[in-house]
Amino acid sequence: MKIGLDVMGGDFAPSATIEGALMAVSALPEEDSIVLVGDESAIRSHLTGNTDHLHRLEIVHTSEVIKMGEKPLKAISSKHDSSITVGLRMLKNKQLDAFASAGNSGAMLVGSMYSVGAIPGVIRPATFTHVPQENGGTSIILDIGTNTDVKADVLYQFALLGSIYAENVMNIKQPRIGLLNIGEEDGKGNLLTQSAFQVMKESKDFYFKGNIESRDLFKSKADVIVCDGFTGNILLKQIEAFYRLLQKRNLMDSFFERLNYENYGGSPILGINGTVILGHGISSAVAIKNMIILAKDISTANLSEKVKQALYKYSN
Amino acid sequence: MKIGLDVMGGDFAPSATIEGALMAVSALPEEDSIVLVGDESAIRSHLTGNTDHLHRLEIVHTSEVIKMGEKPLKAISSKHDSSITVGLRMLKNKQLDAFASAGNSGAMLVGSMYSVGAIPGVIRPATFTHVPQENGGTSIILDIGTNTDVKADVLYQFALLGSIYAENVMNIKQPRIGLLNIGEEDGKGNLLTQSAFQVMKESKDFYFKGNIESRDLFKSKADVIVCDGFTGNILLKQIEAFYRLLQKRNLMDSFFERLNYENYGGSPILGINGTVILGHGISSAVAIKNMIILAKDISTANLSEKVKQALYKYSN
Repeated sequence: MKIGLDVMGGDFAPSATIEGALMAVSALPEEDSIVLVGDESAIRSHLTGNTDHLHRLEIVHTSEVIKMGEKPLKAISSKHDSSITVGLRMLKNKQLDAFASAGNSGAMLVGSMYSVGAIPGVIRPATFTHVPQENGGTSIILDIGTNTDVKADVLYQFALLGSIYAENVMNIKQPRIGLLNIGEEDGKGNLLTQSAFQVMKESKDFYFKGNIESRDLFKSKADVIVCDGFTGNILLKQIEAFYRLLQKRNLMDSFFERLNYENYGGSPILGINGTVILGHGISSAVAIKNMIILAKDISTANLSEKVKQALYKYSN
Repeated sequence: MKIGLDVMGGDFAPSATIEGALMAVSALPEEDSIVLVGDESAIRSHLTGNTDHLHRLEIVHTSEVIKMGEKPLKAISSKHDSSITVGLRMLKNKQLDAFASAGNSGAMLVGSMYSVGAIPGVIRPATFTHVPQENGGTSIILDIGTNTDVKADVLYQFALLGSIYAENVMNIKQPRIGLLNIGEEDGKGNLLTQSAFQVMKESKDFYFKGNIESRDLFKSKADVIVCDGFTGNILLKQIEAFYRLLQKRNLMDSFFERLNYENYGGSPILGINGTVILGHGISSAVAIKNMIILAKDISTANLSEKVKQALYKYSN
């Protein structure tokens, strides 16, 4: 398998990205290789020392970089030789099995829509975050910012996408879907969650467990927690706030350490016609390594094919 | 000053409410008294032991109780002799300076609207929660669930209400108002926060500092954080989830201990024509004591009069 990495993406690129790629290539089986997409001379200058796996690293030179603050649409349509546009083009042309970046996530999203495109039937692609559970398990929450204003049918589809992911990549049989809400009972919530509850409770496409309150976030009441991207982003960044405070105040333990984003590497864009992974802008080498391994797992699970099949079934 | 307490309200009533009232009456100056509204025989059976301040406790007997799960509107319009309806009626008739309850908050809200009413010009009364800041200060977040679906003008007014509270009760000169959002820059957010930002940035009614992300929740970037009640409720309950986990895992310290709701006692209903305080359903005696002291502070600050004046100025 060939996994493409945007070497130029992220606050600590290219040193963290290349170090992460070296860590990942050591961890992955011999048949997997990593394609480093970015400035060749910068890559070569960092590829010193560790030489055991160099034959499993390819370099694809690009001359441009889409920076963090750039407007996604403008950047994608003007920078044809950026690491993001080239990586996504290679993915589209099947020269890569997956493409991962910790760079401009808006550009990755827009670029994915323009290159590999959304799976037919997907209203809005979504991204998620992992949330460790007290019982040792892991849940996911989606969306976390890709879609800030949605209707009930979109939340319904987030549930379906999350369910397929949890089943095929996290290996959870019959994942439990929860709707993030401000009360457990039927009828609670704002207009969006009230109507989403009504459409979700009759679903035969996934196993709907009902409303889940944020006070039960770590209590393993659901494997997939569904919300609009505004709420999900608020929640995600509040976890970050707590994690940093605990670290700062030396109150870390084995459970809270699992809140560290580095452990998960990032999120695929669910609903896209290929394996595209977004990493956190502040990704360290460890996070980059885990992002690459996540790319491999998702590609192996053939996730986008599974989504395609489910949507076909669901629209027929 | 006469502060009314709903003795029947809360999961641990009447024992916790009466114990809290006894603690509060010891802490308050001699001229303050507490009016215990509820079942007289239940009250008398708990009023044993501490007799020093009994002359500052009055009992008003009521024969009915509005339970936690009851539909607010139906309960308020049918239970005319419940502790909540009687307490609010006494407040309206100036027999009380304030009324506090840890009981059915929906019934308290509806009952307040029917009895003392909203201050003219208030679109939606709001409730808040206190959030401790790393620098030792305290901020408030509103709304936390009273209003789940709002427009930009309502968020604008939440900012005004919060600003008046912070200035007059928390004694913060020129309180800094932050809009809870998913990015710091102008233009970020969902449709609601984008439009709220536009109306708030030109405000002369309060000091608008701009967007604030939930990752900065404890960094004292704003004294008053404004959001819709759905988002605020999710955020509040996530704080509860963290607090309980820290407690369970023995990771408490002086900062995180300040997340304990007991320290604050509750929230006034901002925008109501009188001092009405809502406590947490799980209120302990300490929380009840602090709820009563909060009622006293708000009534002393003459908060509803200040809101009235500000809205008069603002509508003229």
